[in-house]
Amino acid sequence: VLPVTLDDVRAAAGRIAGVAVRTPLLPAPTVLGSAGVWLKPEMLQPIGSFKIRGATNAAARLTHDQLARGLVTHSSGNHAQAVAWVARRYGVPAVVVMPENAPAAKVSATRALGAEVVLVPISERAVAAERLRADRGMHLLVPFDHPDVVAGQGTVGLEIADDLPDVGTVLVPVSGGGLLAGVAVAVTSLFPRARVVGVEPELAADLAESLSVGRRIAWEPARAARTVADALRLGSVGEVPWQVIRERVDDVVTVAEHDILAAVRDLALRARLVAEPGGAVAWAAVRGGAVDPRGRPTVAVLSGGSVDPALLSAVLAGGNAGSAAPGSR
Amino acid sequence: VLPVTLDDVRAAAGRIAGVAVRTPLLPAPTVLGSAGVWLKPEMLQPIGSFKIRGATNAAARLTHDQLARGLVTHSSGNHAQAVAWVARRYGVPAVVVMPENAPAAKVSATRALGAEVVLVPISERAVAAERLRADRGMHLLVPFDHPDVVAGQGTVGLEIADDLPDVGTVLVPVSGGGLLAGVAVAVTSLFPRARVVGVEPELAADLAESLSVGRRIAWEPARAARTVADALRLGSVGEVPWQVIRERVDDVVTVAEHDILAAVRDLALRARLVAEPGGAVAWAAVRGGAVDPRGRPTVAVLSGGSVDPALLSAVLAGGNAGSAAPGSR
Repeated sequence: VLPVTLDDVRAAAGRIAGVAVRTPLLPAPTVLGSAGVWLKPEMLQPIGSFKIRGATNAAARLTHDQLARGLVTHSSGNHAQAVAWVARRYGVPAVVVMPENAPAAKVSATRALGAEVVLVPISERAVAAERLRADRGMHLLVPFDHPDVVAGQGTVGLEIADDLPDVGTVLVPVSGGGLLAGVAVAVTSLFPRARVVGVEPELAADLAESLSVGRRIAWEPARAARTVADALRLGSVGEVPWQVIRERVDDVVTVAEHDILAAVRDLALRARLVAEPGGAVAWAAVRGGAVDPRGRPTVAVLSGGSVDPALLSAVLAGGNAGSAAPGSR
Repeated sequence: VLPVTLDDVRAAAGRIAGVAVRTPLLPAPTVLGSAGVWLKPEMLQPIGSFKIRGATNAAARLTHDQLARGLVTHSSGNHAQAVAWVARRYGVPAVVVMPENAPAAKVSATRALGAEVVLVPISERAVAAERLRADRGMHLLVPFDHPDVVAGQGTVGLEIADDLPDVGTVLVPVSGGGLLAGVAVAVTSLFPRARVVGVEPELAADLAESLSVGRRIAWEPARAARTVADALRLGSVGEVPWQVIRERVDDVVTVAEHDILAAVRDLALRARLVAEPGGAVAWAAVRGGAVDPRGRPTVAVLSGGSVDPALLSAVLAGGNAGSAAPGSR
């Protein structure tokens, strides 16, 4: 029995309606030899990522008293902004534990939404959040390892299924696995023959390793932190997502760093969408050839757009960003 | 009697369905003291601008023989790409006359769509297109000064009206006036109390001058070409748009160059949308204070996103783009 069902995702869709943006499917920039590739642009959410869906759904299930005590969480940045945004909407305080290597832009955006930010070494973030919960009596809004959060993220899959009933493959970025699990529940429950495929940076490929050995593997934070995709540095998926992923996810592909940055550039110039590196990995998988979309209508989920301005500037200038994929266009 | 009616726009909506993207309304990045500001992101169209709407509608009204002879037009870049895209869709040739000062990115994008590009001095483009039409026997798909094109662009207004029935003000970039006229027909026919307002660069403010003196004024191309907003350098609106605008447009506001570039930066970093300078003027009007959205649900139409990569890179880097609005964020 899966910890999240299609009915849970449908209930979440009702709770987030009018709060999260109902994002469209956009035709992807033409790839030679491929037709029917679509982008699901979740960077168009108010806080710049899909995380607003899960946080909104989870918060909507809290009692008034739970909410009133305030929300605490831990996150590399996008869930942080989602919880800050939700807390502000309800008029309650938020405290967010973020890793010291989180991008400055995400830290300041979280603070700008009114949250208190506590910076800790990346390996201590869950412990620090739990301590804050206990000390201050706040509610811990778990970032990805919770059925309500997974169900909220699954609304991405429900929308894809509504817009593209002949969907063949859905490509989804993976960090904690909440988005991948949620999308897999929604899409494979509605269309059992559709494939849901995770996408990871080669430098943070813990889920690929986990699926190949058949059990959940964790990478050391320092090892997963080598990727430019700061949103995907967690090093392991959560237990709740894992229970879904092992049943419903067909495959996980990995992408190289230079392909990730080339995808960021390509999306900005040809799809006119600003993706952060972690938000661009699914498009990198199509563009770089890790996935062949021919013959199956394919959706690349673009999960977020909170990119460091200096990085985006360098990637657009081309070549002077170190690994910024010279000659990629 | 207006040259374009609400029924014409509704008929156009039927012709472009499934071809142009049905763009969503997105909540604008928060502006202190204003609520209810929305973005209409037309850069998410396949060719990066609204021009695909008018070109698709106009081409759909041609006979098979007219289409088979191929299409010729003149454009600074966005209509060029729209006509090239439409011609490719029908499998017919396209020739596009572009001004010598068109951005290299737009010239190469038009060629990449399979069109032949003829570069001429900006003041000669209409004459050159007419000569090509006569010499080659192709159909001239007029860029903005035609009822079918205006009706196609008006579908932007129809979608806004559908999504936001309490719309108060719609801000629309102006160059040839086709988009402004089309949106004005749709929105004011459905909601007579709504205001449709044009937005021009201060450096290409021919419509503002025209409305103030009550007749259509043309600026010299060299004078209008000073603005960074290359899509808005035409220097005069067309006669067909003018007949609509003088009856249905409430006002035209102008924006400074530094506000335009600050809006491009702001849209990339906070709305995660890549706008070209001409596509960002309506947001520049809100952000810079030229328009006060308080008390009236307001929509800023973002008309296009084919920006020069070097310009976008410089604007994002902040300060080193010459006029790139230092300290704008």
